[in-house]
Amino acid sequence: MENTINEQTTTQVMTPEQFLEQYQGHRRLTRRVIEAFPEKEFFNYSIGGMRPFAEMTKELFAIAVPGLTEIVSGKTVEFDEHRDYGSTKADFLKKWDQDTEEINKLWSQISLERFQEEIKLFGQYEGTVLSSIQYFVDNEIHHRAQGYVYLRALDIEPPFFYDRS
Amino acid sequence: MENTINEQTTTQVMTPEQFLEQYQGHRRLTRRVIEAFPEKEFFNYSIGGMRPFAEMTKELFAIAVPGLTEIVSGKTVEFDEHRDYGSTKADFLKKWDQDTEEINKLWSQISLERFQEEIKLFGQYEGTVLSSIQYFVDNEIHHRAQGYVYLRALDIEPPFFYDRS
Repeated sequence: MENTINEQTTTQVMTPEQFLEQYQGHRRLTRRVIEAFPEKEFFNYSIGGMRPFAEMTKELFAIAVPGLTEIVSGKTVEFDEHRDYGSTKADFLKKWDQDTEEINKLWSQISLERFQEEIKLFGQYEGTVLSSIQYFVDNEIHHRAQGYVYLRALDIEPPFFYDRS
Repeated sequence: MENTINEQTTTQVMTPEQFLEQYQGHRRLTRRVIEAFPEKEFFNYSIGGMRPFAEMTKELFAIAVPGLTEIVSGKTVEFDEHRDYGSTKADFLKKWDQDTEEINKLWSQISLERFQEEIKLFGQYEGTVLSSIQYFVDNEIHHRAQGYVYLRALDIEPPFFYDRS
């Protein structure tokens, strides 16, 4: 049995632990982008009619823990990107850190076999557990990069993209 | 042997084919972002001192096929994001489509076992084959999202993020 598990591990393209580390690495970078915003601009600054970065962050909150909670429990969770997390960057960072721990706990409850399982997330988005969580990560990279442009337009140097420490 | 391969496939978090499909799905979306730019703005438009989208696209060209060529051949390839691909969007789109085919060909030469292999890409970036290619995808999402902000600022509706067809 021990050997079987080891053999499986060595032949994985990506282990569940590596997938989690990719996600949390990106989340650490997104946290630094939130930190880089001036307090007021985090909530108000926008280009081309897009949402301020605080609103994009609310979308990320609405996806990460609620989505993983649905994946773990099998019970449909409501997608709501307009929840109130407070009115300061500190409020958002506190929620961010709570979610970091919660994501680790939820992840440990997803067995290797489940990543290929077909699901219908938030009652509407069809895909596998794999493609759903890839979407979480890709969507976070996408919105965070929009935050990078906001920071550049504000003449603020964003954190290095490749630093996931 | 047939059974062994099938068993491995069913217990993969992500198969090599799924990884390729994630990459090519993102590349199809990036292609639509290039198409969405007006000819002139593709080469000239910028926010906050950032590069025009054509220059970001040159970076993507410098990574995808050269990076996979190094992974397949084991021979260090030079990273050069300033190569000349022509002066029109049509030139860039032609190169884009050539690379799509080339990526498929190169990918088919990467065996499942290689994704966990440690490499030093372009002679300098240390990681596994997995983390290197994840970086290719993540970096493309990152720069493409900056293109989304450019398009919004130009009052052009970008393609839907979730459409990878």
